[in-house]
Amino acid sequence: MLQTRLLKPADDAYAYPLLIKRLLMSASRYEKTREIVYRDQVRLTYAQLSQRIAQLANVLSEAGVKAGDTVAVMDWDSHRYLECMFAIPMIGAVVHTINVRLSPDQILYTMNHAEDRLVLVNSDFIELYQSIAGQLTTVERTVLLTDGVDTHAALPNLVGEYEQLLAGASTQYDFPDFDEHSVATTFYTTGTTGNPKGVYFTHRQLVLHTLAEASVMGSIDSVRLLGSNDVYMPITPMFHVHAWGIPYVATMLGIKQVYPGRYEPEMLLKLWREEQVTFSHCVPTILQMLLNCPHGTGVDFAGWKIIIGGSALNRSLYDAAFARGIQLTAAYGMSETCPLISAAHLNDELQAGTEDERISYRIKAGVPVPLVETAIIDAEGRFLPADGETQGELVLRAPWLTQGYFKEPEKSQALWENGWLHTGDVATLDSMGFIDIRDRIKDVIKTGGEWLSSLDLEDMISRHPAVREVAVVGAADPQWGERPFALVVVREGQVIDARALKEHLKPFVEQGRINKWAIPSQIALVTEIPKTSVGKLDKKRIRQDIIEWQACNSAFLSTL
Amino acid sequence: MLQTRLLKPADDAYAYPLLIKRLLMSASRYEKTREIVYRDQVRLTYAQLSQRIAQLANVLSEAGVKAGDTVAVMDWDSHRYLECMFAIPMIGAVVHTINVRLSPDQILYTMNHAEDRLVLVNSDFIELYQSIAGQLTTVERTVLLTDGVDTHAALPNLVGEYEQLLAGASTQYDFPDFDEHSVATTFYTTGTTGNPKGVYFTHRQLVLHTLAEASVMGSIDSVRLLGSNDVYMPITPMFHVHAWGIPYVATMLGIKQVYPGRYEPEMLLKLWREEQVTFSHCVPTILQMLLNCPHGTGVDFAGWKIIIGGSALNRSLYDAAFARGIQLTAAYGMSETCPLISAAHLNDELQAGTEDERISYRIKAGVPVPLVETAIIDAEGRFLPADGETQGELVLRAPWLTQGYFKEPEKSQALWENGWLHTGDVATLDSMGFIDIRDRIKDVIKTGGEWLSSLDLEDMISRHPAVREVAVVGAADPQWGERPFALVVVREGQVIDARALKEHLKPFVEQGRINKWAIPSQIALVTEIPKTSVGKLDKKRIRQDIIEWQACNSAFLSTL
Repeated sequence: MLQTRLLKPADDAYAYPLLIKRLLMSASRYEKTREIVYRDQVRLTYAQLSQRIAQLANVLSEAGVKAGDTVAVMDWDSHRYLECMFAIPMIGAVVHTINVRLSPDQILYTMNHAEDRLVLVNSDFIELYQSIAGQLTTVERTVLLTDGVDTHAALPNLVGEYEQLLAGASTQYDFPDFDEHSVATTFYTTGTTGNPKGVYFTHRQLVLHTLAEASVMGSIDSVRLLGSNDVYMPITPMFHVHAWGIPYVATMLGIKQVYPGRYEPEMLLKLWREEQVTFSHCVPTILQMLLNCPHGTGVDFAGWKIIIGGSALNRSLYDAAFARGIQLTAAYGMSETCPLISAAHLNDELQAGTEDERISYRIKAGVPVPLVETAIIDAEGRFLPADGETQGELVLRAPWLTQGYFKEPEKSQALWENGWLHTGDVATLDSMGFIDIRDRIKDVIKTGGEWLSSLDLEDMISRHPAVREVAVVGAADPQWGERPFALVVVREGQVIDARALKEHLKPFVEQGRINKWAIPSQIALVTEIPKTSVGKLDKKRIRQDIIEWQACNSAFLSTL
Repeated sequence: MLQTRLLKPADDAYAYPLLIKRLLMSASRYEKTREIVYRDQVRLTYAQLSQRIAQLANVLSEAGVKAGDTVAVMDWDSHRYLECMFAIPMIGAVVHTINVRLSPDQILYTMNHAEDRLVLVNSDFIELYQSIAGQLTTVERTVLLTDGVDTHAALPNLVGEYEQLLAGASTQYDFPDFDEHSVATTFYTTGTTGNPKGVYFTHRQLVLHTLAEASVMGSIDSVRLLGSNDVYMPITPMFHVHAWGIPYVATMLGIKQVYPGRYEPEMLLKLWREEQVTFSHCVPTILQMLLNCPHGTGVDFAGWKIIIGGSALNRSLYDAAFARGIQLTAAYGMSETCPLISAAHLNDELQAGTEDERISYRIKAGVPVPLVETAIIDAEGRFLPADGETQGELVLRAPWLTQGYFKEPEKSQALWENGWLHTGDVATLDSMGFIDIRDRIKDVIKTGGEWLSSLDLEDMISRHPAVREVAVVGAADPQWGERPFALVVVREGQVIDARALKEHLKPFVEQGRINKWAIPSQIALVTEIPKTSVGKLDKKRIRQDIIEWQACNSAFLSTL
């Protein structure tokens, strides 16, 4: 370490740790009449939000929650969730945002593994909770969350109902200072094998992520993506990487926030219209659902800015959204990265390009946000050139990456090799810094000694007008190792045949974008493609299904 | 301290300190064709900027500069200065930005006090440097900065001329990681008494300040103040609190930057026009000069966004700038605060007000930026209510405040009492968080047991159409303790008399904004009002001048 001139905070008087409570200090005061809306049921002002956060802190403290404890939340996206994202860390505890789309067994595993002490349970999950309650090893208390219907529920060790508890609590809480390296949040990510893995983020990491995310959203590109006068509605769940950290950004900036509960297209569109939502974020499959849903037919979405992440944004979805007035920006991140790593940005050179070129960059993973360092490496850990062509595993450094998986030293070590976080994503980097995610390492199709990107193939196939949805995986092949296998959902009222799809892919072969042998030998028409709990294509299950289907030679498969 | 769950970086591999080098990682790559312009002499791209920073680091290292050393810069605003603001801290050294407007004695004092080891000297200051060189106790080497004219100068211990040295240096430098609490910058602020005092900021502080400043500039208010497509030109010197930190923000965001050298109105306006500048910052007196200068007569400045700080922005200057198309935003900060503390922002409530109300808030010091905590206290250190009326000393907490004055333990202790930085400014806070600076504590006029704000009086007097500039100070008075004394510069071709000015102030008395006895008993017409080295009204000198004038009963004074 260099011998620089060090001036560390000499005493507590000067020290000013980066704590989540500080994100609440400014905008929540000067924008105190701005609203936090929950469905068509609750409207709060920022002034009330601050009071309710203090009330929740008092309720939790009185229920015995101490600094260092973990408090879990099982709720749909709501104002209550936002309050938990502040109040729980602000008393020094850790908020565990439970993925309610996991199986009961997985939820049980995560709650025991995270050592949850108190759980806030939405009445929709009472039955689920009851089914696992007997096997919970650390939970001591529960709090009931309801939309005002059933205030008396059969939850074991119930402290009470959220609104009643808040109503009885003081609106004053003297939130203490503590070390900025204190853990604030934790949640679980499901891998391809084994149990869900817990990632965790400290106050320092979340404050830095919030500042960097805000400066990117405010300053990037020719238009402002997120500013003071926008209206924000998340369409990725709050249990999914803190809804990408945007609730913290929106609260810091005093932006009106709209929480939709569970994601019913009708409610989303109603809130979008009535609350005049201008900014959202979601995964491609959810956007697809919104564009295709009957309530949205013919609706002009002009002025709606949506960040797409979680999975690659393909050209046909971009075009479909653009035609409806939506301005899409691609971004990249993962559960392990808090999540924001990069976002689309067109520099001067690209802005001067053709529309096709511009869009081809708008749908890439984008450029790193400030403070993020990127590189690509080969299987031996050697750095590869950023030439826009060489593919390697994307590795990262940034101030807001999880330090590991909770209580999983071996997996943590594999995640952090040689001082870089290993994403498991195959990418190219170009000389401008653009990240282009080519595939998950485990989804790459290895055929005849070459690597084929399943994402590339999906993008090309999805451009056929009859294709509504597509997934491509590698299927075992005795001659080639693997061969691409495509699952296709056809648009209603349309038909497709092998010749048409091959004709459709031929131009890409002619342009040199893929080789001839990249054309899938098997294409299955299906009515639905399996998805993960956060709406991504579930390739692990697709691969298993294909093995089973191949074994049974199932009639369900209409192989072309 | 609470027993939270601590997860400090376990080892160096994971640790990712907040270092200035990281501000250079993203935008300087994806906006590599954007330009850094120096007068009409130099145009660099961001790609070249990165290379030159590495070259400068090599030059300094080869000249013997080590981590922990202090390297001083005596230059006008230039691309070289920007390079120094990065390269010097990036090798672990401290950049001392010398205030070239101080007297030679003061400059000498600051250089010895800061323990400068190497100095980069613009050829304009060779004579000055030679006059103090014999008394410099720590400087070992010098580097000459020129605009290409005199490459051979009589500087003692000259390493060489900047451009020639850079040309001979490698464009590769492996900038190391080190502790984020390492000091990065230092500079001196002149107080009312005694020697200049050195403030200092760490890498961590500057990175946090940059992120917070960027998120405010990008997101605040209904319009975006600073975004990717803006063109930035500073009009407060780079030695003055790092040009308010904006060069770091602009570089992080990859924004085109224009450096004007010394502040000649003709050059400023030429650059504004030719480089299509859209964003600047300056003190009120400089803006006044620009609006009044002959080259600017009749020019429509539409689209120019300017942040005003350093001194209060009064209504008449706001109106004058607005009439010329300039969008002004007031901001507040000081040398001790890095500097950004607050900026004007109109919330929903104020946006719905009358134009007069809106402007009255636009010219206040604004609301705290994220992570800044404010309070007002009385002389005994008791907290006062934020009711918009009670006046007290403004005290601050934030992650980017100087930890003290370099080698001045007593003054540092006075600056940091009870864990708050004491600004020396008298302010009100309101329930929305708005800071309204009423005066410097030492400039408040204490008359008959009451406190009069000199800023209020200046604002009111300046609204008279014949008044070009005004300063009000307290002059000793045997009966009242002090009485307000005004210095007025009259607009060319205009006349003024006591009755007209008293008539002009009468409505303010009638509105209850001031008491009758607040009307200055003495008003002096002068041709010029003394300014400090950074262009603020020099009230210390004005008070001394008045004492001398009163003693001599000078005929120069035309007391009304």
